[in-house]
Amino acid sequence: MVNGNYLNPRDIDFYLYEFLDTEALLERPRYADHSKEIFDATLNGAQDIAKKYFANHYAKGDDNEPTFDGVSVTMIPETQVAWNVAAEFGLMAAHHDASEGGLQLPEIICKAAGAYIQAANCASSGYYIVTASAGNLVRNFGSKRQKEHFLHPMMDGRFAGTMALSEPAQGSALADITTSAKLQSDGSYRIRGQKIYITNGDHNLTENIIHMVLAKIEGAPPGVRGISLFIVPKVLINEDGSLGRRNDVALAGLLHKMGNRTATSTVLHFGEREGAVGYLVGEPHQGLRYMFQMMNELRVGVGLGAAAIAYRGYQHSLQYARERPQGRLPSNKNPLTPQVKIIQHADVRRMLVAQKAIAEGSMALTLYAASLFEDSQTLPHASDKERAHSLLDLLTPVVKSFPARYGCVSNDLAIQVLGGSGYIRDYPVEQLYRDQRLNPIHEGTDGIHGIDLLGRKVFARRGDNFQLLMSEIRASLVDGADIRSVEHLISPINEALERVEHVTASLLERITADPDRGLSNASLYLDMFGHLVVAWIWFRQAVVAAKKLSCDVDECSEIDANFYHGKLQTASYFIKRELPKTSHEAKILEENDSICFDMQETFF
Amino acid sequence: MVNGNYLNPRDIDFYLYEFLDTEALLERPRYADHSKEIFDATLNGAQDIAKKYFANHYAKGDDNEPTFDGVSVTMIPETQVAWNVAAEFGLMAAHHDASEGGLQLPEIICKAAGAYIQAANCASSGYYIVTASAGNLVRNFGSKRQKEHFLHPMMDGRFAGTMALSEPAQGSALADITTSAKLQSDGSYRIRGQKIYITNGDHNLTENIIHMVLAKIEGAPPGVRGISLFIVPKVLINEDGSLGRRNDVALAGLLHKMGNRTATSTVLHFGEREGAVGYLVGEPHQGLRYMFQMMNELRVGVGLGAAAIAYRGYQHSLQYARERPQGRLPSNKNPLTPQVKIIQHADVRRMLVAQKAIAEGSMALTLYAASLFEDSQTLPHASDKERAHSLLDLLTPVVKSFPARYGCVSNDLAIQVLGGSGYIRDYPVEQLYRDQRLNPIHEGTDGIHGIDLLGRKVFARRGDNFQLLMSEIRASLVDGADIRSVEHLISPINEALERVEHVTASLLERITADPDRGLSNASLYLDMFGHLVVAWIWFRQAVVAAKKLSCDVDECSEIDANFYHGKLQTASYFIKRELPKTSHEAKILEENDSICFDMQETFF
Repeated sequence: MVNGNYLNPRDIDFYLYEFLDTEALLERPRYADHSKEIFDATLNGAQDIAKKYFANHYAKGDDNEPTFDGVSVTMIPETQVAWNVAAEFGLMAAHHDASEGGLQLPEIICKAAGAYIQAANCASSGYYIVTASAGNLVRNFGSKRQKEHFLHPMMDGRFAGTMALSEPAQGSALADITTSAKLQSDGSYRIRGQKIYITNGDHNLTENIIHMVLAKIEGAPPGVRGISLFIVPKVLINEDGSLGRRNDVALAGLLHKMGNRTATSTVLHFGEREGAVGYLVGEPHQGLRYMFQMMNELRVGVGLGAAAIAYRGYQHSLQYARERPQGRLPSNKNPLTPQVKIIQHADVRRMLVAQKAIAEGSMALTLYAASLFEDSQTLPHASDKERAHSLLDLLTPVVKSFPARYGCVSNDLAIQVLGGSGYIRDYPVEQLYRDQRLNPIHEGTDGIHGIDLLGRKVFARRGDNFQLLMSEIRASLVDGADIRSVEHLISPINEALERVEHVTASLLERITADPDRGLSNASLYLDMFGHLVVAWIWFRQAVVAAKKLSCDVDECSEIDANFYHGKLQTASYFIKRELPKTSHEAKILEENDSICFDMQETFF
Repeated sequence: MVNGNYLNPRDIDFYLYEFLDTEALLERPRYADHSKEIFDATLNGAQDIAKKYFANHYAKGDDNEPTFDGVSVTMIPETQVAWNVAAEFGLMAAHHDASEGGLQLPEIICKAAGAYIQAANCASSGYYIVTASAGNLVRNFGSKRQKEHFLHPMMDGRFAGTMALSEPAQGSALADITTSAKLQSDGSYRIRGQKIYITNGDHNLTENIIHMVLAKIEGAPPGVRGISLFIVPKVLINEDGSLGRRNDVALAGLLHKMGNRTATSTVLHFGEREGAVGYLVGEPHQGLRYMFQMMNELRVGVGLGAAAIAYRGYQHSLQYARERPQGRLPSNKNPLTPQVKIIQHADVRRMLVAQKAIAEGSMALTLYAASLFEDSQTLPHASDKERAHSLLDLLTPVVKSFPARYGCVSNDLAIQVLGGSGYIRDYPVEQLYRDQRLNPIHEGTDGIHGIDLLGRKVFARRGDNFQLLMSEIRASLVDGADIRSVEHLISPINEALERVEHVTASLLERITADPDRGLSNASLYLDMFGHLVVAWIWFRQAVVAAKKLSCDVDECSEIDANFYHGKLQTASYFIKRELPKTSHEAKILEENDSICFDMQETFF
């Protein structure tokens, strides 16, 4: 652990200022009043908050999950303190314009600052993340009055927000939601229905909770085309913005999770009595389109959180491996010689490299995604904005699912490095393992993201976005072509890229002809595609590292040199040892293997 | 769930009577008084016990882990009832000779019966499993008096047993244990030292606990050659067998685990006062050799338990997938049509087939291992016994580690099938996931088994055991050569087999020249080797299924036909989709890739 941080600040700075060019943002008009000092002060402040107010109750919040006595939810006081500190620091407002009461900080700085906090306490940090995201929805699609009544209190921490999509009878299949909305004479709606797995759906942190609810207006078209978005506050707001009476929103119960326990997961009943008062956001029947903004934002958030949890597990196991003596190398059979630290054992080193590859690869990927979002908002030219948006749109399934899925693998390895100690609650790695397991589920399972990627994203805009990504990857390979220490990595990536191109082309026809069969291996496609993307991310890191190492030796301290060598070695690991595994997936996809598809229900 | 069982009895019977030839055991003199009816009655009895006395407190024991008030350990009463029932049913005595008070049942029947119980409650069943294993150690190496005083009360459930190896300062590296033994004038020893992670090291289930302790007699040779085995009872036994005074064995504390909570994990202090009285088992300095019997037995036990947990998770998720409606197939965009059961979604089916492949493959593998143990004990000819022993010796690292490692993968998939429901404690799959995670750690981590397999087992007896296994696999392929429905599986296995042979040969020289580097990818070797073994196990199942299906249709009911088709399809899945993944591991091993080995500590 570097200075008590669960992320290595040297590494985070690498992503911001070497891997990405965050300083260049200062040239954009929006950030003219900022400076690198302000960025760094923000990051340092986040580190302090993470250590003092979030890390302090990571285990305690797990041991003492929120309770519900039928009237109100109770949680440990540290969660409240953390929320207050988050609000004071501006975590829900930092990215907003100064004219709207924000700090006007770039997305990438907000996300990097947040990564420290998510690593310190992924469960507790969820309160501000979801609230900020709900706020963005109101900002972008809400009316002026809605912003005054709901956005501003969410920005300053008086209110919290949620995203209320899933229902008991349909889960992820939004076409089938049954929550209804009925127009009233005053222009508001009455909402009736049940929502489940609503994260932070009730708690006692704030005086109000603003639910962003998907529902269908009576008479709306069937399916997703009939979905509208409503603001449904827990407590109604008077005209002057003061709190009014309780709305007809009831907590039916808390769900008890394996991990991520500081965050409540709830079953909410809307309108069991007189009907919950809801306010339509934007146009009727456009709710899913609006909500996709929040979903996509939270998908990147899940990726970042998953990266942070993996990163923390890696740091814990690295520290343990450096300190714990046990056994001797196979070449030494003399029991009278001292034991070695377990980092000396080849298999422990393998487990550490594998974690580093996942954790740092995921962190770099998610911060890159944040930079794309930034670019899509603040680049000067519309075509460049569009380009960044297109890449982010295509990459979102990977940004969400790779860190989540492989974060679980990484946290599994962290336990394994600690052995028996990893399995007991005296060490944090078992909690990280439990907390991480949520990430491949919420905001779309891997299965859903596979279908989203293969069934929609790669063929969107006639495949232009896909082609754009492929050309970006090729450009990076060209960038590294003359650098000796990375040239061995070019051909594995090139091979993987051609495999992905070939598989994608071959699947297009099949999906058109028979979507069920053509999409049946979509999860494998997502995995193959994700590996190519992360290999590219690692290659770009390796190129930066190689360039730094090739500079004048005096400019590169020994500590820095080791850091860069670590990047090169880990890039080699991921690209030479992990990436080629996807060639078998490509084969299955190319052959349109139907072993699973053809398995009959009666055969199980 | 078939009749409330967490294992499918049809499938267990398949392993016993179709995949293996358990009925043929009745021809062996030892089982002359038995019959298939007795075997089946035992299995039925185990199913009843599993349902009534073990499944009942699976969740409750997790919610209410044992507590220690400084004097004694308290646990939920259901654990005591389960222990009593286990004793009454004969779970600690079933395999012993009738002349010694046992039921003289074959190992494979005991293990299959135990599998039902382990699936119902893996944590609670550990008490009888470890006790039975400790008893076997006393039976095989203890004196007549030791058997009277310790074995018989362990067989009838008055006493429980433990295995006390690990110490705080050395973990798995037994060469460095420091627990000491000092000879007394009465022939007993005084034991002093600390042991950690001792499963079931203290509890209130029995009037006594018999610790099988590794310690070094003063003046013993250094390293593993100086280790002796001692019986150290919690309560001393008087000459007449009655209980005497408390021995100097103290519970220093309970360890709080992520899962497997009904089983205590303990820190024990031996001899903090006058010295704990211990009794030498067998010869001095032969302790590790003796203990390997218990370790190897428990390694198979871990494999079986891991298979049972994976199997149960698979059954839960299968049931959920059959019952839960959600969404529509990609080809159907009409929201007015009914939702489908999620088993209709291709990716859910993939996750179910993958679980079936792991769970049933692991179950077949561990029961095969039990049959090898049986054969090594009761085959008529010494050379056949030796042959079975050799195979089991070689396969033990795989039998332990494949079900454990891939059991975690399988239980992960079970959660994923349930989605959000899988993550909450209302459903059992999250507990299975936590409980399973212990298995890749205890009784030797995967890393240790990798080194054991590659550094010792495959080259033991000049590679004869390895050659024996390869010829067994080849013989199975020949057996299936004429069967149309399995012939497509032959070449993938053959290729994998040749890869394993080639890699093994190429590594022999390297390991001799540089053991540290040569063994540095041993975990990958274990994984590659394990996949070949499990592919072989699946092929053998497929051959049986294909033969049954090719018989007269009238003999094969529709239910049976579906069952056999499921075996064939799952064999195809494992052999065509999972096995080929190991070709990349083979490449890494062949190239003696050193990316991880060369990663310097300073690079992290």
